Amino acid sequence: MSLRVGVVGGGQLARMMIAPAVEVGIELRVLAEQSGMSAALAATDVGDYTDADTVLAFAREVDVITFDHEHVPQAVLHALVDAGVAVHPGPHALLYAQDKLLMRAKLDELGMPQPRWAAVSDAGELQAFLDENGGRVVVKTPRGGYDGKGVRVVSAATEADDWFATLAEDAHGGSLLAEELVDFSRELAQQVARRPSGEVRTYPVVETVQRDGVCAEVLAPAPHADKRLTDAAAHVAITIAEGLSVTGMLAVELFETTDERILVNELAMRPHNSGHWTQDGAITSQFEQHLRAVLDLPLGDPSPRAPWSVMINILGGPAEGGLDERFAAAMVAHPAAKIHTYGKAPRPGRKVGHVNASGAELDDVVYEARGAASHFD
Amino acid sequence: MSLRVGVVGGGQLARMMIAPAVEVGIELRVLAEQSGMSAALAATDVGDYTDADTVLAFAREVDVITFDHEHVPQAVLHALVDAGVAVHPGPHALLYAQDKLLMRAKLDELGMPQPRWAAVSDAGELQAFLDENGGRVVVKTPRGGYDGKGVRVVSAATEADDWFATLAEDAHGGSLLAEELVDFSRELAQQVARRPSGEVRTYPVVETVQRDGVCAEVLAPAPHADKRLTDAAAHVAITIAEGLSVTGMLAVELFETTDERILVNELAMRPHNSGHWTQDGAITSQFEQHLRAVLDLPLGDPSPRAPWSVMINILGGPAEGGLDERFAAAMVAHPAAKIHTYGKAPRPGRKVGHVNASGAELDDVVYEARGAASHFD
Repeated sequence: MSLRVGVVGGGQLARMMIAPAVEVGIELRVLAEQSGMSAALAATDVGDYTDADTVLAFAREVDVITFDHEHVPQAVLHALVDAGVAVHPGPHALLYAQDKLLMRAKLDELGMPQPRWAAVSDAGELQAFLDENGGRVVVKTPRGGYDGKGVRVVSAATEADDWFATLAEDAHGGSLLAEELVDFSRELAQQVARRPSGEVRTYPVVETVQRDGVCAEVLAPAPHADKRLTDAAAHVAITIAEGLSVTGMLAVELFETTDERILVNELAMRPHNSGHWTQDGAITSQFEQHLRAVLDLPLGDPSPRAPWSVMINILGGPAEGGLDERFAAAMVAHPAAKIHTYGKAPRPGRKVGHVNASGAELDDVVYEARGAASHFD
Repeated sequence: MSLRVGVVGGGQLARMMIAPAVEVGIELRVLAEQSGMSAALAATDVGDYTDADTVLAFAREVDVITFDHEHVPQAVLHALVDAGVAVHPGPHALLYAQDKLLMRAKLDELGMPQPRWAAVSDAGELQAFLDENGGRVVVKTPRGGYDGKGVRVVSAATEADDWFATLAEDAHGGSLLAEELVDFSRELAQQVARRPSGEVRTYPVVETVQRDGVCAEVLAPAPHADKRLTDAAAHVAITIAEGLSVTGMLAVELFETTDERILVNELAMRPHNSGHWTQDGAITSQFEQHLRAVLDLPLGDPSPRAPWSVMINILGGPAEGGLDERFAAAMVAHPAAKIHTYGKAPRPGRKVGHVNASGAELDDVVYEARGAASHFD
């Protein structure tokens, strides 16, 4: 009798749980938004994740429910919990990944280092925040943003007029999140896994390189990360995981400032792009670790298999020359690079796969990963 | 449009192709003997692999046909080829994995080192072979043997009377294979991948430890293997792969004799138990390599990820205490061990999974793997 994990959402994160599930012997079931998605192989159901009955019916066949994304409405999550379903992460944790204003307030409460921020409900409040923060700040919609969407750098309060107008139309009203524009030297990410029974395991802190608001490249571990930095990052992630009762994988996106502080940027309560390197570069991948954690099984060793690993996203360009031909060209030129694809049709800017490489010398590993990824430009 | 590989047979080897297929983006389809087998997740069809129409219908939906085992009848294989299906390995190669007498004759032709052998068709011929080979020899049924079945050590020709009787009943007649009882110091296995277009890649030669005729443990690479030995093993495997036009993975089981020769024991034209360590211990696992090879894609780097890897089979004992509980106990005690399960009901002596461990010191790695595996005794 194998353990059964139900994943809500059929995207690439659900897909990447398939391999470790098969290897370990966990039965994975996926509730996909539509047929033919990335995780189609394990998609036992197709349905609307905003419909409580649909998700409840799906949940009845599994031991635990977890997620490919953080968009399942709180009402649906609570319906699951009320019906006695094990949900990891639970609604009280996911709330903070779903609403950036609640997240900022909670992190203040936990004493976590973060950018100066404010909830601004009109142009006047935003202008005041601009005036206090150098005249140039970040504005975010508290909900629904990802990969650079719902994030805007503004120099004048009028630049957020459309978002305020949308808020005003919303019966619930609400505010935007304004954040200081952090003077950072680089971005980092710290992953931690936490089981319902409390065990936590941190991965090495990594450096993430963004282009156009999308993660382009990850270096693991983060180069030039001294003990003070790695300890601080691990402390922040563990404090948040415990403080928010996160179960499963948590990714904490961090800014490293020019004055050598770390500040929390975003949270993700699921496997995360910053941890794709672990598939080939760590003893226990983030996908296996997430499955173990949500099943409350003992966590695996997150240690790297090699001194350096590098992950580069493949952002699908024009569909000239199938992915297959480019794939073969990359394989022949870079036999040690691990190319992962998501079964998605290429489209400009769309994440359709990634390349992992590992080795003893960072320069060589970067060269290998970039070389292989360049075939997909 | 992804490439589609059809695997005939739904056992653990087909199952272990699922993870790399998903990662790389290959669509895997399995023709399983029955429902609920190890490779059930990818089992798109259930049917009889000895029926040409069944296999042909399955083959129509894929780009290439390959195998979980070597038992598909030659008539079915030829029907596939005649219908224009790409079959890897092909019938002319598989013939030598299906019939040990043909294999021995072919290896002589290729000048490969092997034990003294003879085709014996009655007790008189077997007695003559016994008299010439020290009075104690190995007798094998040429077809259908595996994991110690169809293999017998005899000191008198009468000990094979039942097998001769079975042969006599068979309309086709035929012979048994008699082999000298090799005085070996240990057993080795050499794996090689070969594409239809000719590229070959060898894995490090490994030491295999058998118990009761079943592979119990694999040490990769084989300890104390000098260049002469590793070169000889690679040469033998490449010569056989090319000489027999094997496509996909080939495993050559070898004896290392007390006088430091290597002799070919058995061949397997598929991923093999001696290569399960590659799932966690090599850059390209044998399962990914097999898929690449049968699709005629460029082969991956077979280099080890760590100086030493050890694989230990889990032979399912009595079903007291579910596999799940023992699994959790092993995980908590050995977080760095990689435990693989095959989704099979435990039964005494049945291979239901394996443990891989890797690291810098062989003693530590053996300890880790044995420690984790001991929870399943």
